[in-house]
Amino acid sequence: MLDQNAAVLTIDLAAVAQNYRQLADRIGQVNPTGWPQCGAAVKANAYGLGAAEIAPVLLAAGCRHFFVATLDEGLSLRRLLGSGPQIFLLNGLPAGGAPDIIAADLVPVLDSPPEIDAWRQFGRKDDIPRPAAIQIDTGMSRLGLTAREWQTLIADRDSLRRFPLALVIGHLACSDEPASPHNAQQLAVFRRHLDMAREVIPAGTPISFANSSGIFLGADYHFDLARPGAALYGLNPIPGEPNPMRQVVRLQGKILQVRDVDAGTPVGYGATHTCAHSTRIATIGCGYADGVFRALSNQGAVHLGDHRAPIVGRVSMDLLSIDVGDVPAALVKPGALVDIIGPRQGADDLARAAGTIGYEILTALSTRYQRRYLPAG
Amino acid sequence: MLDQNAAVLTIDLAAVAQNYRQLADRIGQVNPTGWPQCGAAVKANAYGLGAAEIAPVLLAAGCRHFFVATLDEGLSLRRLLGSGPQIFLLNGLPAGGAPDIIAADLVPVLDSPPEIDAWRQFGRKDDIPRPAAIQIDTGMSRLGLTAREWQTLIADRDSLRRFPLALVIGHLACSDEPASPHNAQQLAVFRRHLDMAREVIPAGTPISFANSSGIFLGADYHFDLARPGAALYGLNPIPGEPNPMRQVVRLQGKILQVRDVDAGTPVGYGATHTCAHSTRIATIGCGYADGVFRALSNQGAVHLGDHRAPIVGRVSMDLLSIDVGDVPAALVKPGALVDIIGPRQGADDLARAAGTIGYEILTALSTRYQRRYLPAG
Repeated sequence: MLDQNAAVLTIDLAAVAQNYRQLADRIGQVNPTGWPQCGAAVKANAYGLGAAEIAPVLLAAGCRHFFVATLDEGLSLRRLLGSGPQIFLLNGLPAGGAPDIIAADLVPVLDSPPEIDAWRQFGRKDDIPRPAAIQIDTGMSRLGLTAREWQTLIADRDSLRRFPLALVIGHLACSDEPASPHNAQQLAVFRRHLDMAREVIPAGTPISFANSSGIFLGADYHFDLARPGAALYGLNPIPGEPNPMRQVVRLQGKILQVRDVDAGTPVGYGATHTCAHSTRIATIGCGYADGVFRALSNQGAVHLGDHRAPIVGRVSMDLLSIDVGDVPAALVKPGALVDIIGPRQGADDLARAAGTIGYEILTALSTRYQRRYLPAG
Repeated sequence: MLDQNAAVLTIDLAAVAQNYRQLADRIGQVNPTGWPQCGAAVKANAYGLGAAEIAPVLLAAGCRHFFVATLDEGLSLRRLLGSGPQIFLLNGLPAGGAPDIIAADLVPVLDSPPEIDAWRQFGRKDDIPRPAAIQIDTGMSRLGLTAREWQTLIADRDSLRRFPLALVIGHLACSDEPASPHNAQQLAVFRRHLDMAREVIPAGTPISFANSSGIFLGADYHFDLARPGAALYGLNPIPGEPNPMRQVVRLQGKILQVRDVDAGTPVGYGATHTCAHSTRIATIGCGYADGVFRALSNQGAVHLGDHRAPIVGRVSMDLLSIDVGDVPAALVKPGALVDIIGPRQGADDLARAAGTIGYEILTALSTRYQRRYLPAG
């Protein structure tokens, strides 16, 4: 079934693969058998783009380490990818989740002493080694062991040998601001935590620190395993500088109706826009229920070819209105597609107009779109 | 599969049914065979709450007129409800969609002269009557016939007899602002359009004007068929006054981790929050990928019982942090649920903190939640 009025979301899988290879090259990955490695964050349905389509492309491109948030995401991904690649659960060990985690060979990222204890207890039952990762909090105050908890843990020199330690993780809070002093501070704190545990962490345990932007902070931040998400999907990992990544997403809304309006005509809910002079208004068949945020009301714009058309009035649930008075009439007719995200305006640009970040633009992408995947190879 | 860390979204179907009956009573619906009638907007997956669960409850409560935005939504709804209830497509007649529309007995809302022509042409093929609705634009500049287009149309006195006219629709732009002069203006314009077509519109053709808030503007606004959405789902149709509707949605996030932090500790991405004094921070397992908007960063709050806990730092993709320093420790432990939308804070309240409206809070609700439906009765 293809609703001809639905907006069209095109996802370029070749661009995802190319972005992966660019990042892997940047950290010096030679092949998927030794370190360093480039993993991939595919949580939140691969940032809204479709984990079922994205993850196999990353696997084919050489990725062997996948990061999801939740157990459900991990179980789906294991079914999709089969055995082999490591799948890490960033949101930790959910209560009662251990049997499912073990059956699917997932790796929980243990974030607290109680989670570490629970995992040890579980492993004791059958003496089969159950790998897990440990996260150290170095400045997010979100998930992971505090400095005190880490010190207490490693005071027991066998603490990290009671289960196979698959990974030690830290996470950067400000990596998209290269000038922020937090980056070097967090790096120093992370290194100090690792150094104080040098004889407790089993030799050869891989270390992971860098997300997308962290990769661009330099080799000091790379460690063994990077775990980019945003940059794979075309978001700019170095805001303020030209985007080194290939654009992955194109979102095109469809013109449902075009009308000539007189000066003084109000547009949309609350009549928040009034046409200053006579012009033409086109109505596009998508709205905030499709993830085109209401914050774009009277703020954002779309493009018809190279022509910019501002969003006028409030974005409504299923529709938005644009002023096409300055766009050649031949481009403006019912059925024509307009770029909401496209060559002239990336997800990061749309996000700026909405007062948010490209990540949220992507994760809000709707199921009402016609999704088209351009093949990877 | 039940991810024990996933947030819990509870939807009270009994409240939906009760809200429907309240609105139907308000407009004077006696039974589902005569006018006036109360329809229901179930577009955008019933405002994010699940059309598959909501629509049958409304049908059982007496609703016989359903409004969706797109053809896909209409086809799904027809499969769900079976034959009988009318299903209107508010976004008009998609190119090539007529055969599917007719096969599923849907009613397109024709929004422009070309759509009306296309529908007539199609009907001519087999001489079987094909009902359609017509929308008149009275001040949204969005969809529907302009005054000029309407005048041209009705100059041909047979124009509205070439297919069964199922409904004539107008739409209010400012009904949630009872004091706005736009309401009376739009009503006057709509009446004028109807009056000038008194001998063209077939006798007995029902008229629809009021959405949720329009119902509360008074009987003048009711006409034959109301089509509320928001109020059915518990949003307040009369902002600024006590909400007369029963709350439908409860959204509870789960505490993943709790930590004591010292004064000066930064929280979250960009370190936008720094703890002013030593306190406790709890991490909740949902974020903007779940529809808890990033705009709530350092703005919104959640509740543990009656205790308010502010959101601190930036909301991240899968997580958010709250300050629970003022909440009794017994309530704050991993696994405990906190109300994001609940008895102390409705969707409208959360929307205010995020700078948007309750509608967008609902349509952004995520598929990652555990959804629980309380039965209608």
